[in-house]
Amino acid sequence: MKSDRSYFRLSRVVALVLCALLFAVAAAYAQTDPLPSWNDGAAKKHIVEFVAKVTNEGSPDFVPITERIATFDNDGTLWSEQPMYFQMIFALDRVKALAPQHPEWKTMQPFASLLKGDVKGALAGGEKAIAEIVMVTHAGMTTADFEKIVKDWIATARHPKTKHLYTEMVYQPMLELLTYLRANGFKTFIVSGGGIEFMRPWTEKVYGIPPEQVVGSSIKTKFELRDGKPVLVRLAELNFIDDKTGKPVGINEHIGRRPIFAFGNSDGDQQMLEWTAAGSGMRFMGLVHHTDAEREWAYDRKSHIGTLDKALDEAQAKGWTVVDMKNDWKVIFPFEKK
Amino acid sequence: MKSDRSYFRLSRVVALVLCALLFAVAAAYAQTDPLPSWNDGAAKKHIVEFVAKVTNEGSPDFVPITERIATFDNDGTLWSEQPMYFQMIFALDRVKALAPQHPEWKTMQPFASLLKGDVKGALAGGEKAIAEIVMVTHAGMTTADFEKIVKDWIATARHPKTKHLYTEMVYQPMLELLTYLRANGFKTFIVSGGGIEFMRPWTEKVYGIPPEQVVGSSIKTKFELRDGKPVLVRLAELNFIDDKTGKPVGINEHIGRRPIFAFGNSDGDQQMLEWTAAGSGMRFMGLVHHTDAEREWAYDRKSHIGTLDKALDEAQAKGWTVVDMKNDWKVIFPFEKK
Repeated sequence: MKSDRSYFRLSRVVALVLCALLFAVAAAYAQTDPLPSWNDGAAKKHIVEFVAKVTNEGSPDFVPITERIATFDNDGTLWSEQPMYFQMIFALDRVKALAPQHPEWKTMQPFASLLKGDVKGALAGGEKAIAEIVMVTHAGMTTADFEKIVKDWIATARHPKTKHLYTEMVYQPMLELLTYLRANGFKTFIVSGGGIEFMRPWTEKVYGIPPEQVVGSSIKTKFELRDGKPVLVRLAELNFIDDKTGKPVGINEHIGRRPIFAFGNSDGDQQMLEWTAAGSGMRFMGLVHHTDAEREWAYDRKSHIGTLDKALDEAQAKGWTVVDMKNDWKVIFPFEKK
Repeated sequence: MKSDRSYFRLSRVVALVLCALLFAVAAAYAQTDPLPSWNDGAAKKHIVEFVAKVTNEGSPDFVPITERIATFDNDGTLWSEQPMYFQMIFALDRVKALAPQHPEWKTMQPFASLLKGDVKGALAGGEKAIAEIVMVTHAGMTTADFEKIVKDWIATARHPKTKHLYTEMVYQPMLELLTYLRANGFKTFIVSGGGIEFMRPWTEKVYGIPPEQVVGSSIKTKFELRDGKPVLVRLAELNFIDDKTGKPVGINEHIGRRPIFAFGNSDGDQQMLEWTAAGSGMRFMGLVHHTDAEREWAYDRKSHIGTLDKALDEAQAKGWTVVDMKNDWKVIFPFEKK
């Protein structure tokens, strides 16, 4: 009997400890703010209310897990985009790295200006100059070689102003939002005007978004056997521009479902938000408004990068959520966290 | 004390019942064959051994879950493709349905032959005739309209020989394989020469493969506002052919990772298998060989549909797994199950 009694005591202790633990976890869970870097305000309220409604099985707004598709622009929405798109800085760095193999660039625009450090002069050639720079730096190698080039650059290159790695210049509040959505059954996608193969090597580590959930602009690739080994060669030929009206096209092609939640920051995202809004049931459309010249940058209607003009008007007219970076975000970058 | 004693007895009973249940479940799990429609043979052995190795954390062949990408051709690999691709039958049905709106088709090839029931005559016009049929039946409407057309057809149309719904002519052993792979952490994709928007409306229900994991051929779409409402209009312009050398290109574009497991049935899948084989670590390359004239169809090197010639040579030379439908599969279609 004695052993039975002590066994009983032990099992009661175990049960009590387990119960205490359960309550502690439940309490901690209830008290944990999933968006700690967001100030309490309209934007945070809209997000939390939307997620609560679409995940509540008893709600008329309930959305099954398979339909919980969330799409995010990248430049200016998940990471910074000033003083120019980071992919453009990558391209300029590549021009410098490749210059010794191209002596002809010394007298050939836009490369001559670039190599003298005159970025403005180089880009004066407009879209043609940009296309030339992109093609010599992004095409002509295999997909595996390009992946390695991007990985090496992103691991070491630093932003001219903050001196931080580019992957450190992601927005802490948006990282929390991505995690919060995934914890609530959402599948998170990037839908960016940036190059799909420029993003894929690092989005899983930085955003928790795997390569198969990245949609972006692309150049064509070609299958070849080299010494019997298959490779994909990147061609100097445009395949797809994932910007403006291209975003709904890219979403349809890659995802094949309409998002119920979409976030952008510029007129390049307007059609993605319209496409999201046009579905039935509850929808969330959000814009990041760059209002913080001190901690990040402040720009909108007149900016050449990330112009936010028509989309801002539509957001105000239709009640889309506009995030005021200065007032809505406690910290901008992860490195500001105490 | 008495109530404590009875509580103790109760908790012991509960613990005993739970233990018994646990053992029963474990035993049932251990005894359950995940591939019951596969005969014991080399093909089944290769599959099970491959999955065991790449999912065993202690094995040098272990592959992390995020890298467990499996790609499947559709026509002839997951469902039948005789007497012609089911999507072609869909197109012919659409020509008949649309004929009243096109009186000119009565004297215009390839439609005139088609409407007289002379499919061979219609297709005598070769690729140009096929392209014309595909474009009039697949383009000119919104993506939402096309989705509805496909859903209505797939829910009602029946195969000319078996009289079954087309979605009933999927291969039971391959359904089991898809489920088995997913239970082992694989993400399963379709990579088909068929139309991406022709497959997406039903692949989730039939194969458990969601729209965002379907890769296929496509025509271009265009974003438009119609009465202020955004739509995507399907254009009579080719976007991408996901066949032969196009399959690795499509895999790279949509998935952005190399599969470690791929299954096809024809020379159209050869490059997908080569691309899969060329990665590092353990790889599985499989071909379905149509050898069962009685229960399905028997065809390979000389067939006009699903030609299996060069890929069969390569499979034999390189030791890829070739499934002999007649001998490896206990049942072909789900409706044969007792």
